[in-house]
Amino acid sequence: MPELDKVRGIANRTGAGRRCGIALKSAAVLAMLSIATPATAQVGDEAQFIFNTFSFLLWGGLVMWMAAGFTMLETGSVRTKNASVICLKNIGLYSVAGIAFFVIGYNLMYVDVGRWIGSFALFYGPSPEEVALMAGEADAGAQAAVVANGYAVMSDWFFQMVFVATAASIVSGALAERVKMWSFFAFTLVLTALVYPVVGAWTWGGGWLAQLGFQDFAGSTIVHGTGGWAALAGALLVGPRLGKYRPDGAVKPTPPSNVPVVTLGVFILWFGWFGFNGGSQLALGSAADVVAMSQVLVNTNLAGAAGVIAAIAVSRPLMGRVDLLVGLNGAIAGLVSITAGPALVGHHWAILIGAVGGVVCTAAMKLLEVVHVDDVVGAVPAHLFAGVWGTLAVGIFGGGSVWVQLAGIAAIGAFVFVISGLVWKILDMTIGIRVEAQVEQLGQDVAELGIEAYPEFVLMPEDYEES
Amino acid sequence: MPELDKVRGIANRTGAGRRCGIALKSAAVLAMLSIATPATAQVGDEAQFIFNTFSFLLWGGLVMWMAAGFTMLETGSVRTKNASVICLKNIGLYSVAGIAFFVIGYNLMYVDVGRWIGSFALFYGPSPEEVALMAGEADAGAQAAVVANGYAVMSDWFFQMVFVATAASIVSGALAERVKMWSFFAFTLVLTALVYPVVGAWTWGGGWLAQLGFQDFAGSTIVHGTGGWAALAGALLVGPRLGKYRPDGAVKPTPPSNVPVVTLGVFILWFGWFGFNGGSQLALGSAADVVAMSQVLVNTNLAGAAGVIAAIAVSRPLMGRVDLLVGLNGAIAGLVSITAGPALVGHHWAILIGAVGGVVCTAAMKLLEVVHVDDVVGAVPAHLFAGVWGTLAVGIFGGGSVWVQLAGIAAIGAFVFVISGLVWKILDMTIGIRVEAQVEQLGQDVAELGIEAYPEFVLMPEDYEES
Amino acid sequence: MPELDKVRGIANRTGAGRRCGIALKSAAVLAMLSIATPATAQVGDEAQFIFNTFSFLLWGGLVMWMAAGFTMLETGSVRTKNASVICLKNIGLYSVAGIAFFVIGYNLMYVDVGRWIGSFALFYGPSPEEVALMAGEADAGAQAAVVANGYAVMSDWFFQMVFVATAASIVSGALAERVKMWSFFAFTLVLTALVYPVVGAWTWGGGWLAQLGFQDFAGSTIVHGTGGWAALAGALLVGPRLGKYRPDGAVKPTPPSNVPVVTLGVFILWFGWFGFNGGSQLALGSAADVVAMSQVLVNTNLAGAAGVIAAIAVSRPLMGRVDLLVGLNGAIAGLVSITAGPALVGHHWAILIGAVGGVVCTAAMKLLEVVHVDDVVGAVPAHLFAGVWGTLAVGIFGGGSVWVQLAGIAAIGAFVFVISGLVWKILDMTIGIRVEAQVEQLGQDVAELGIEAYPEFVLMPEDYEES
Repeated sequence: MPELDKVRGIANRTGAGRRCGIALKSAAVLAMLSIATPATAQVGDEAQFIFNTFSFLLWGGLVMWMAAGFTMLETGSVRTKNASVICLKNIGLYSVAGIAFFVIGYNLMYVDVGRWIGSFALFYGPSPEEVALMAGEADAGAQAAVVANGYAVMSDWFFQMVFVATAASIVSGALAERVKMWSFFAFTLVLTALVYPVVGAWTWGGGWLAQLGFQDFAGSTIVHGTGGWAALAGALLVGPRLGKYRPDGAVKPTPPSNVPVVTLGVFILWFGWFGFNGGSQLALGSAADVVAMSQVLVNTNLAGAAGVIAAIAVSRPLMGRVDLLVGLNGAIAGLVSITAGPALVGHHWAILIGAVGGVVCTAAMKLLEVVHVDDVVGAVPAHLFAGVWGTLAVGIFGGGSVWVQLAGIAAIGAFVFVISGLVWKILDMTIGIRVEAQVEQLGQDVAELGIEAYPEFVLMPEDYEES
Repeated sequence: MPELDKVRGIANRTGAGRRCGIALKSAAVLAMLSIATPATAQVGDEAQFIFNTFSFLLWGGLVMWMAAGFTMLETGSVRTKNASVICLKNIGLYSVAGIAFFVIGYNLMYVDVGRWIGSFALFYGPSPEEVALMAGEADAGAQAAVVANGYAVMSDWFFQMVFVATAASIVSGALAERVKMWSFFAFTLVLTALVYPVVGAWTWGGGWLAQLGFQDFAGSTIVHGTGGWAALAGALLVGPRLGKYRPDGAVKPTPPSNVPVVTLGVFILWFGWFGFNGGSQLALGSAADVVAMSQVLVNTNLAGAAGVIAAIAVSRPLMGRVDLLVGLNGAIAGLVSITAGPALVGHHWAILIGAVGGVVCTAAMKLLEVVHVDDVVGAVPAHLFAGVWGTLAVGIFGGGSVWVQLAGIAAIGAFVFVISGLVWKILDMTIGIRVEAQVEQLGQDVAELGIEAYPEFVLMPEDYEES
Repeated sequence: MPELDKVRGIANRTGAGRRCGIALKSAAVLAMLSIATPATAQVGDEAQFIFNTFSFLLWGGLVMWMAAGFTMLETGSVRTKNASVICLKNIGLYSVAGIAFFVIGYNLMYVDVGRWIGSFALFYGPSPEEVALMAGEADAGAQAAVVANGYAVMSDWFFQMVFVATAASIVSGALAERVKMWSFFAFTLVLTALVYPVVGAWTWGGGWLAQLGFQDFAGSTIVHGTGGWAALAGALLVGPRLGKYRPDGAVKPTPPSNVPVVTLGVFILWFGWFGFNGGSQLALGSAADVVAMSQVLVNTNLAGAAGVIAAIAVSRPLMGRVDLLVGLNGAIAGLVSITAGPALVGHHWAILIGAVGGVVCTAAMKLLEVVHVDDVVGAVPAHLFAGVWGTLAVGIFGGGSVWVQLAGIAAIGAFVFVISGLVWKILDMTIGIRVEAQVEQLGQDVAELGIEAYPEFVLMPEDYEES
């Protein structure tokens, strides 16, 4: 474990008297007792098992909630004429990801991992001893075997599953408003059943990148980079929305159609990130784990805050105005940036990492406009660019090797970008990946789905879009 | 406990090395130590007490959040002219349910339960020993008595209370847009103070259905069926919205007015369902409990995902198009279906149960249209029909008796349907249950409440509704 | 600890058989075992450490979610033309508050607290022993020192930080639609870096109010009162919105522009309040703590429910109609009211306290109209007025001294009101605190930010505002 940043401020822990009229008496009393009774000091293995498992379940549940955050962010960002389809894509991708990861993905990622990938076996489930325990038929040996695993087998599956969905969510936002629904689902299936698990196997599955020393605590590159590269490949092949980039070089502004809903989405993501990063400590059963988890949550929050402030600060020079959307995307970028090493850096560095992430994201939003890549929600800047930065930052501030971090970024990037490009290309040559121009003009809600998002509201006439 | 499905895939738990550069060291080390120190292996009773109580509080809090999910689902589904009233109904029903369950409901359901119902005593509260403990006046005997209960008395009240509110939420959605606000609140009071507690006493209170062997883990029938039957009785007596079913047999489409808000509601419900089903393990203090809780959360998620996919798949043949709303309702139906036995079936069966639930719900939505029952949000298909299926499925796949399950479904259904019908009828003959036609046409927001939901937005003219 | 209300209803805890076919067996069995093995009964100190720390992290995360609740409440309450700016203010204030509390606020509030305030040192961080533990370099002494603290140092920082943001959120709502964005952020910086920490030091930091015996469990006065007084000072100096109070005495109605979003915000706040009050027990590592936490959550929920019902009940006589917004604000008022003593009063008193809070809030909403103070969301009635009531109620029902409570309310009120007034005045004389009339008429979204909240929706013409 790399050295923690030792430079910090006051660490006077007289705080135990806080809200002093009220609580902490038991903690204080037992802390004193514990010196006299060291025998009871350590956490028993069954209690550890419960703590670890509960951490997976609880934080995992909170990561699932991020699916709602992506959905709100995206449905509020698109034109109203595409706001229903993006909702369907999001609840659909979460469903597809869960089933695909159950049927094949988890085994590829975590079971019998060799140098490249894991097992091609189908399905996953609790251990025989756990089944016996649940059925009330476990003998002492089976009970001991269950506990010795450190956590319930399927609680880990649950926690890992929600990460898969996150990667797929990133793609849906970038390609919104013109990618075909069925092609998107087909791509999601490949991404969540094969691409993401292979990438995951390389590091989290104990594969060759892990052996190389590549560090990515909760997935700045493994999750956000993977989603970002897949989105970028798709955005290049699907192409920009009609009229987004005009022949004269002008960029048609496509502001969010529903700002409160976008803001809600960002708050959901921020909240969910506590589970995303906090749960990635992967254990809760010792003082060391929960101290690290505290470090993780504080750094996560500081980086998000710094991302917001930095992005707003540079939005005027870079984008020409103080911009809410830049600020909101700055939050995400700050959170993505710290995700690679929230337990490994001091709080000052977390602020710096988040702030730089916010700046990188804002600059990348401008860059994509310049090179005419159309990313509806700024997913590539926030997830891929900030993810690259955050993964490097672990090498810089967290005690890792910058070169190893670069190697991991490059390997994962190349793999995901190439495979994703191939998949998008194959889909394009078969069922097609882009809706027809007429569908795009009418909007996918009416033309592809037949359900308007806001049927009772009077909306601006179509030529508003051209203004 | 019925036998678990033993057919499953790979269960190689080499996963402990996952994200291997980082964590789980303490778990692994202590797991090894535990073999040498069996004395510390088991969870102490006070720690068990904490785990169990915290599980009730935390998961219960998450179930409360489902009230927001129902509210969003419903306010996004109704015409904009009724979107404020349904918000008021929902926050009101949650408040009424909580007070009613405190004053009388919990005692009826859980205290001194005999063959039919519990105690008619008023109010509920912590035990005398708990009061002493909180006041710092507990002797060793009182402390032991508190811990011996296994959980804090009021934490269980809290967890059960949020379930009551769920049942009432189901009713508000089905009867939206035409039921009188005060009549709805009056019905809610009876439902939450009397009807639901009596039904609950039969099984969860240890009454005659429990003695018969009826199994309903988290309430496919006890909660969702009860809500569904009460809603159906109301829908029949209140009648369909004006113009919904035309004399020529045509069905007026009434699409949601705000699809993103509906989608948000479904995500909230899905997230909250982890608490609904996970917390229904009712304990967290042993390895067996937390293994079962893992099984529950995974099955819950898989069933919801399968419900989405199956409902979308059959929406074209059954409803004539790929339908977002069918997919969203499919999620709820899948979740309801697994609710009766998420700890009792293997993951494969969870997928099957959820998928069939999605199909059943979609078919039932069509059926209600055919028989001209007007259920604004599809609550009866998703909660009652899928709930019946899920309750039967425990008998089929979970080791229970299909006949006992059928008996429980029939008994609860008959009781709730008849009593609810009577209550609705009495309300109809006294204060009336349906708003006047003029109020319905103007919308309840303006005519009953005086607060429009979206006062600054230009809305379609009234005749839009007739198109 | 003051005596608990001993009058309560049935407390028969035969409930252990509930949902009896399924669970709690392990708890029951181990409860029996525990009598024979008293040695394992108590929670070990490391397990306590984990419980306490996890409680801070988890409930703290949930309090962060309240920031989204305030945002939704506020963006749905303002005119559509100001709905984007209020989103930016909210995500911005949360970010500023977090950084400010890290750099200076926490030290002022909790470190080396004397009679008035704490340390002026900069920054805060984990203890040296925790750093060693995270780095894997802790010897037995360091490990013991970490555990002896009772909780991870930064988990407490995390929990306290989200409270600071809450205070700032209250201000943004009251001053919406006319306060300058940059002035608001400047005020937020002072409030969260200095004003709130000083107030907090007086009680929670163990300062003179704590020594006097002032009781404020989770901050009816310390958090909600501070926010309310700061908002009131701002509202008086910024003045009412143009046209809100007409020369002829008429009050222009300014109904929420998006009622579902406001309702969502209130549900988020209610949900988050479980963390706000539950986490304020500040410990989870003993049976006494978790029993108290159960009491806290139940009382919180009952008070909120009573607030809704009472506010709706008095809305007709006080406001002239049954009012959704009064009901929603009644929920917040009920929750604020119980916040000063949710562990100290019996459930009956919680209902009474919440109900009176709902009435106080409704009356105060009317009062502010009469005295022509413009508070866009009713923040001062719900947070300040109900907070005063709740703080007094601890003296009345919770065993405290009404006079001490009054002294605390007066001291904190005078300090915050005077300092806030000064800060607002200085800001007014420098960068100005109110947008120009033209900006106000156009709306801050277009004129200050350049981003409309709902750009594709057709909105009512401007003169709608004057109708």
